[in-house]
Amino acid sequence: MSTEVFIGVDLGGMSAKASCLSGEGRLAAVVRAKTDIEDSPEKTINTLARLVREAAERGNVPQSSVAAVGVGAPGIIDCETGTVEEWTNFGWKRIPLAERLGSLLQKPCFVLNDANAAALGEARYGAGKRFQDSVLLTLGTGVGGGIVFSGRLYQGYKGAGGEIGHTVIKLGGRKCSCGRRGCLETYVSTRALARDALSEAKKHKDSKLYLLWRERGTADGFLLFDALKRGDACAERVFSRYIAALGEGILNLANLLRPQAVILGGGVSAEGETLLAPLRRYVNARLTAGDYAPLNILAATLGNDAGIVGAAEYARQRFS
Amino acid sequence: MSTEVFIGVDLGGMSAKASCLSGEGRLAAVVRAKTDIEDSPEKTINTLARLVREAAERGNVPQSSVAAVGVGAPGIIDCETGTVEEWTNFGWKRIPLAERLGSLLQKPCFVLNDANAAALGEARYGAGKRFQDSVLLTLGTGVGGGIVFSGRLYQGYKGAGGEIGHTVIKLGGRKCSCGRRGCLETYVSTRALARDALSEAKKHKDSKLYLLWRERGTADGFLLFDALKRGDACAERVFSRYIAALGEGILNLANLLRPQAVILGGGVSAEGETLLAPLRRYVNARLTAGDYAPLNILAATLGNDAGIVGAAEYARQRFS
Repeated sequence: MSTEVFIGVDLGGMSAKASCLSGEGRLAAVVRAKTDIEDSPEKTINTLARLVREAAERGNVPQSSVAAVGVGAPGIIDCETGTVEEWTNFGWKRIPLAERLGSLLQKPCFVLNDANAAALGEARYGAGKRFQDSVLLTLGTGVGGGIVFSGRLYQGYKGAGGEIGHTVIKLGGRKCSCGRRGCLETYVSTRALARDALSEAKKHKDSKLYLLWRERGTADGFLLFDALKRGDACAERVFSRYIAALGEGILNLANLLRPQAVILGGGVSAEGETLLAPLRRYVNARLTAGDYAPLNILAATLGNDAGIVGAAEYARQRFS
Repeated sequence: MSTEVFIGVDLGGMSAKASCLSGEGRLAAVVRAKTDIEDSPEKTINTLARLVREAAERGNVPQSSVAAVGVGAPGIIDCETGTVEEWTNFGWKRIPLAERLGSLLQKPCFVLNDANAAALGEARYGAGKRFQDSVLLTLGTGVGGGIVFSGRLYQGYKGAGGEIGHTVIKLGGRKCSCGRRGCLETYVSTRALARDALSEAKKHKDSKLYLLWRERGTADGFLLFDALKRGDACAERVFSRYIAALGEGILNLANLLRPQAVILGGGVSAEGETLLAPLRRYVNARLTAGDYAPLNILAATLGNDAGIVGAAEYARQRFS
């Protein structure tokens, strides 16, 4: 490893993970610790400090070679000061995470939103590494992501941008947790997909989708894709509406920002070409100036490491 | 004027305008020339060259003090090479405008999309000058605009971004000229506003809106605002739907990019607080993290000069 190493931390509600990122973009072994909703911010920050030291040890990096630490954290983050403005789940409010962790470690610390960290990781070392500008769209229980321009994150004023899931694609549409109606998230999250599959299945009790659901007892994103692979017409109807909603969301990003790549993350993206091929067809048929300025639609490649890699890369960019 | 002067040109389908921008951001007298759809690209480019020389003379700037020229042009522009990829109206296709104008003038020339030029002008010298990041949303016959980050334009890959009017806010909604359905433009352009006003008026023949329309014989944006100022309930219904659609479009921009300011341009923006006050109420009531990272909604201040100022500023940024 080069002499200057950056450590990335991915802080979540169940666990925190950390690892060293070398100058060549390789990640060392990932170390983990539990996080607990009952713990005070102080205790959680102590856990993070211990985890960072452990990550350095496991990566055979002397503490003196650790240049800086980046932390991807949930909630609303003031990325300039590294303060967690609000992490509702853990009851955090205005916690100066960068400052406190930095003083424990005696290293510069930088904090950013976890979805933005994943976007930066994928952009620099994952699916987006051939491109200057890319947008990550994470299709999970919710829909998040981040925007990378010229290899750097665009986080908006005080880091409040990048809320891709909370852009309305249907005025007066489905009620969203954010209070608005018709947000992209309410149509393309895995939760929405599972719910739409179940609702369509119940209308067609002779469909493979319905039979699969009865067999398994749960409706999730996999149910739809499994029925789809068995050539079920009912599943195809649900899927084609899903592709249209997701496609329109991607076209919106393309017309507004025209990145060279939109990278899809989250569980659904593991479906690969089953998802990507029809999505590319939908988008390319409707993309203005698409021949001239084409858009690549790709699946994320870093999986669960994207956040750690991106947090470390963020520390590198902020440090230099 | 300082010794280094940049000339901005605003190229349109009816006329071209040009002026000198001083280092302090002051515009000299604006000179004009007609443009004609019948003219060859060569002839039009000769007209621009003459106009640039005239702008220097009128600004009392010796040719030797003109550092570079910026041109805001309609259509699809490759801003890296300064090529007009396609200007449908004039039948231009792959015209290397920057190169040809530059060789006529023996000066570096830079070309960008006209809406982006206006956005840069407003951002640096107009309504956005107090802010690092701003988005211009121009409400005209169409809806355009541009995105400015850290004082510089974000134009997307090959300049194909910034098409704010062509982001879908209503899946399966109104048919748009771009081929998609439900684009922001189909709900918030002055054309859409006039059509909605007329359609509502015809349903309520006792309304002031209807009477005004019968009196004038034409439906345009002014009709609605005039009826509104007379306290007409019918006009208020149309207006409140307009505010909701425009508000949702602005909330989408805010959640995705969280600029510090959204600047409204175009004819409708001249209505000032009549438009801005209800729009701010709508947006602020729904803006995530709005207390923490507020959004300013402002009217453009440079009027028709925004494109010239922005084109000159673009030349300054690219030149240095």
